[in-house]
Amino acid sequence: MFEQLGLIGCGLMGSSFALALKRAGLVQRVVGYSKSPSTTERARQLGVIDIEAPSALQAVSGSDVVLLAVPVSATEATLKAIRHLIDPAMLVMDVGSTKCDVVDAAQRALRKELSSFVPCHPIAGKELSGVENADVNLYAGKQVILTPTEHTGQAQLRKAAALWTALGCHVMQMSPQAHDAAYAAVSHLPHLIAFAMINGLQDQPKGKDYMALAGSGFRDFTRIAASDPQMWRDILIANREELLAQSKLFQQALQTLEALIDSGNAEALQARIQQASQTRAHWRASLQKNLP
Amino acid sequence: MFEQLGLIGCGLMGSSFALALKRAGLVQRVVGYSKSPSTTERARQLGVIDIEAPSALQAVSGSDVVLLAVPVSATEATLKAIRHLIDPAMLVMDVGSTKCDVVDAAQRALRKELSSFVPCHPIAGKELSGVENADVNLYAGKQVILTPTEHTGQAQLRKAAALWTALGCHVMQMSPQAHDAAYAAVSHLPHLIAFAMINGLQDQPKGKDYMALAGSGFRDFTRIAASDPQMWRDILIANREELLAQSKLFQQALQTLEALIDSGNAEALQARIQQASQTRAHWRASLQKNLP
Repeated sequence: MFEQLGLIGCGLMGSSFALALKRAGLVQRVVGYSKSPSTTERARQLGVIDIEAPSALQAVSGSDVVLLAVPVSATEATLKAIRHLIDPAMLVMDVGSTKCDVVDAAQRALRKELSSFVPCHPIAGKELSGVENADVNLYAGKQVILTPTEHTGQAQLRKAAALWTALGCHVMQMSPQAHDAAYAAVSHLPHLIAFAMINGLQDQPKGKDYMALAGSGFRDFTRIAASDPQMWRDILIANREELLAQSKLFQQALQTLEALIDSGNAEALQARIQQASQTRAHWRASLQKNLP
Repeated sequence: MFEQLGLIGCGLMGSSFALALKRAGLVQRVVGYSKSPSTTERARQLGVIDIEAPSALQAVSGSDVVLLAVPVSATEATLKAIRHLIDPAMLVMDVGSTKCDVVDAAQRALRKELSSFVPCHPIAGKELSGVENADVNLYAGKQVILTPTEHTGQAQLRKAAALWTALGCHVMQMSPQAHDAAYAAVSHLPHLIAFAMINGLQDQPKGKDYMALAGSGFRDFTRIAASDPQMWRDILIANREELLAQSKLFQQALQTLEALIDSGNAEALQARIQQASQTRAHWRASLQKNLP
């Protein structure tokens, strides 16, 4: 399907994408670039990329598909650095977890090259980052949201959808605004809360002792707190308006429960917990087919 | 080791305990009672118990080990109902997630029989409740906290420790107060937050749509929100003081992050996330041997 993937960013997301594309036989060779030369070298040693590029621009040279897998705050500078080599037949995608800021960055960085750019968000990841944790199956069975700009070409949009589908993904299309509102609620807020949960423990003299006693509920609840700090710093700031609005709604719901607990209103408390419990049990049942 | 287990409460925790005790060859027969006769019957049909008892008292009759596996608010009434048949050689345990209230309840319900009672909290469970979800391996490899009262007999305490150890558990002893402070932080608060997270989504017109887009981070983060409402209603109210104190610390940590996000202070935000991320990554590494 493609001759050459230009991979910009050889972390977990980018490396896993390269491995999956290779295994599916969708690309002949991968030219990769990472900000840190040692990461690029490691990616080649691990067989994630075939050729090390000394710059983002040189990773794009000769490529017919390009993936930006960098923290979202680096999107604009990266697109500016490569735009001279973006040609109309090329497919350029990103994998950022926020989309309004990525679309804005693309609109600032690109002109006619905008038609080649398809903003993407694969709903995949794990709390372990870096090329060492690359996983050829990371994207299999996952949702991928495409949020095309007004200038994204129809040919590129179809090509992007076909590519992710060939990797076993379920492709959806949304506006960047609808995307960011939804993921503030179901991804960015849970991460924010998980970070705050661990911070809250760290701020206590006995926090470490308490954590040593924790079980599997805590383990799963806080798993995402181990996520990559730089990547999440960018996401939380990029989507701050939607995120802070969601955090406010969450704190209202929390304070409702607190008031019921404080007053010992067992009946109303149970009713409220029951709503949550049933909804969560039903969610698991309805979506588990898509999740590992 | 034991002739007869009297099981009071044939839900997930009690049924899994009976199955584990049987498989380990530690008990000859299990006499079980549940508030709902259909649950007791189902427990017998599933081989969890051997004999159905029509009352808690009759489950205790002839037993040398008794397990209370009921919502913590039912502890006092249950102990009162069985106390006439508690003899000095008997081992009586509970599996409640809060311990100060259980110890208080025992001190109100029992007199000389207090020496037979060992308050226990196995750090095990899952979000699926009921006898249908009984799991012979639920307790294997898990921590069990014993919080003896001042009047708990040394013989019973040793017997309880030996029993849990024989089931593959790691046994620890703590005061009820230390227990409740720790588990407010690492279990009760995460549950409260998970319930509030789902409630907060339910309170929004688009909440269901957002949830349909959620991925594996959300899945793990909210798993405990599907937990048993009545059991958790009791726990949250029983340990309300420690829990509300922990919730306050959590909200302070959350608001610290919110302020950094709102002001776009990327450096300080990353530093704070990094603390959480490193602590959580280190926690996983240090304790994963004990968790499935």
